[in-house]
Amino acid sequence: MSQELNNVPHRRYNILTGEWVLVSPHRTKRPWQGKTEKTTVEDRPVYDPACYLCPGNTRSGGSINPDYKEPFVFENDFPALMPQGPGENLSKGLLVAESETGICKVVCFSPNHSLTLPLMEIKDITKVIKAWKKEYLELGSSPNINYVQIFENKGDIMGCSNPHPHGQIWSQRSLPPEIIKKSKHQLEYWEANNKSLLAAYLEQELEAGDRIVLENEHFVALIPYWAVWPYEVMILPRKHYQHIGQLDSREEVAFAGIIKALCIKYDNLFETSFPYSSGIHQMPTSGEEFPEWHFHMSFYPPLLRSATVKKFMVGYELFASPQRDITAEQAAQTLRDLDDVHYLQK
Amino acid sequence: MSQELNNVPHRRYNILTGEWVLVSPHRTKRPWQGKTEKTTVEDRPVYDPACYLCPGNTRSGGSINPDYKEPFVFENDFPALMPQGPGENLSKGLLVAESETGICKVVCFSPNHSLTLPLMEIKDITKVIKAWKKEYLELGSSPNINYVQIFENKGDIMGCSNPHPHGQIWSQRSLPPEIIKKSKHQLEYWEANNKSLLAAYLEQELEAGDRIVLENEHFVALIPYWAVWPYEVMILPRKHYQHIGQLDSREEVAFAGIIKALCIKYDNLFETSFPYSSGIHQMPTSGEEFPEWHFHMSFYPPLLRSATVKKFMVGYELFASPQRDITAEQAAQTLRDLDDVHYLQK
Ligand SMILES: O=P(O)(O)O[C@H]1O[C@H](CO)[C@@H](O)[C@H](O)[C@H]1O
Ligand SMILES: O=P(O)(O)O[C@H]1O[C@H](CO)[C@@H](O)[C@H](O)[C@H]1O
Repeated sequence: MSQELNNVPHRRYNILTGEWVLVSPHRTKRPWQGKTEKTTVEDRPVYDPACYLCPGNTRSGGSINPDYKEPFVFENDFPALMPQGPGENLSKGLLVAESETGICKVVCFSPNHSLTLPLMEIKDITKVIKAWKKEYLELGSSPNINYVQIFENKGDIMGCSNPHPHGQIWSQRSLPPEIIKKSKHQLEYWEANNKSLLAAYLEQELEAGDRIVLENEHFVALIPYWAVWPYEVMILPRKHYQHIGQLDSREEVAFAGIIKALCIKYDNLFETSFPYSSGIHQMPTSGEEFPEWHFHMSFYPPLLRSATVKKFMVGYELFASPQRDITAEQAAQTLRDLDDVHYLQK
Repeated sequence: MSQELNNVPHRRYNILTGEWVLVSPHRTKRPWQGKTEKTTVEDRPVYDPACYLCPGNTRSGGSINPDYKEPFVFENDFPALMPQGPGENLSKGLLVAESETGICKVVCFSPNHSLTLPLMEIKDITKVIKAWKKEYLELGSSPNINYVQIFENKGDIMGCSNPHPHGQIWSQRSLPPEIIKKSKHQLEYWEANNKSLLAAYLEQELEAGDRIVLENEHFVALIPYWAVWPYEVMILPRKHYQHIGQLDSREEVAFAGIIKALCIKYDNLFETSFPYSSGIHQMPTSGEEFPEWHFHMSFYPPLLRSATVKKFMVGYELFASPQRDITAEQAAQTLRDLDDVHYLQK
């Protein structure tokens, strides 16, 4: 069956969002004369006096960073969300608006300007995970924060404006559309089967095997059956946890380990510092129970053919449906076959 | 009310898709140190012997283009959709797939390699509209084609691999997710009010005035209240038409006129050949009645601050919710204030 799907257009269903992706595997044969990206062979210093995220430097908002040695978290100087909103009664007829409030933070992963996750030590990535846990739990227990989105934009083609290793956390009052979709489909499955949708899915994937990229004692990294981005990967905890706050210290290390191992494979794929947006989807923090939620971390990388040719999500994708050119199985095979040692460290 | 919304974060509801966009107008003040795009000052020849879309040239698939003088339509040499699919019973448990079939075409807008829509004559754009109508009606009446997506990717940052003026048409058996959402919300309104949702919305917009960009006898171009892209525009027919096949010849000219006028403003905004993806959303072609549908053409342009700085739809946007930095009203004001004469033709 999977063999057949490697050659003909078909669509696959995203069990988490209820949406479909169009898969056109034969299409990679078309020549590419379009835009190529610059590859920047980066040889970054450990400390950059011009970087607003390096220890001791002054940020664009005027604050001075402490001389931090561990992951450093601060409130975004140009937050998209703020604690105060515009008040009530903003709508009129078909013009519907609501106040939105929240808190935006920046998480510097390391004081060392030259690093990225694949080049960091597992023990230091574990500290990042501890910082994420703390923020998820603290922000989540604030009265008007009902959802906490942890994410990283890596690489300038993903809109990242500073190469210092860092991610962001945007937390807010309302539940964003992606979370509403994923809550709905997990809840439906939970109510029908009294089992986590993603636990059942993971069992099926482990049995099938052909979309698995990496495994360790506590986590599995796989290309979801319905992946949209060429080398999209989802990291799933084997245990049915609703959020990262539930990880014990050994699980934190395993989480750090699989993130590092995946990012090494990514860098090795085109021998470049591989760009992506990653994010952790977990249960809302509104105070209710969400037994159906199974947290997962996803990576959406844009590169398709090489370090310089990306997949464009444009006309058809924006107006009709996401579309991909290689199958999930082909992408998983490619990632599995790559070396586990970073190409810069051989 | 609108004044207040120009300064504080809030979210707005998309009445067509049922999703929300986060608006953070205060955020444009942040400095930008990230990726900038190259501006290509293009001085393209009228005929390019290396272009696979110019009249008389050989395409990558091997076919030879006729010496066309009018818009020229042909089947895509590397189609994402094909008339034959992989057959039945592709799903297993939580791995859900379906066959997908369809026909993909390319529409060359003009034999002249150097043109773009804003630089074409209204009478020649009218011919493009006639070609779109013909394709919509013909493809739509094919037995397994239930939806026809007409779109254009303009500019290399929108994944367009050939600057020859052209768009595409992907038509298929199933209804894509965007169409399912828009059908649902239009139908709900239609059943509750016996009136087109977009006709009612247009009335409210014409009364408010502050999001209107351009008008003529038959069409209005406006920034939708819930716009996601910085200078996103929707062109709406004043009459409640389900699809472009219903336009009479005077309405075709008016449609061509407003497309040209909008694209001139776009080019004038940053004095560059303005990139975008555009698409026409119209009723499915499954043969049923869709009285609720009101066709519209939308433009999704990525540029935000200048010809070289775009809006990145990345981490938060991919994992949580679309987000924009300027309000729809600010964008409309900016476009309204621009000259109606193309900067290259002054
Ligand atoms: O068909 P083209 O122009 O080669 O390809 C372009 O448009 C397609 C439809 O939006 C996208 O899938 C591709 O990513 C993009 O590069
Ligand atoms: O906050 P930053 O890093 O300046 O900005 C980046 O991430 C944000 C959140 O995904 C996006 O809204 C911006 O478009 C992107 O450039």
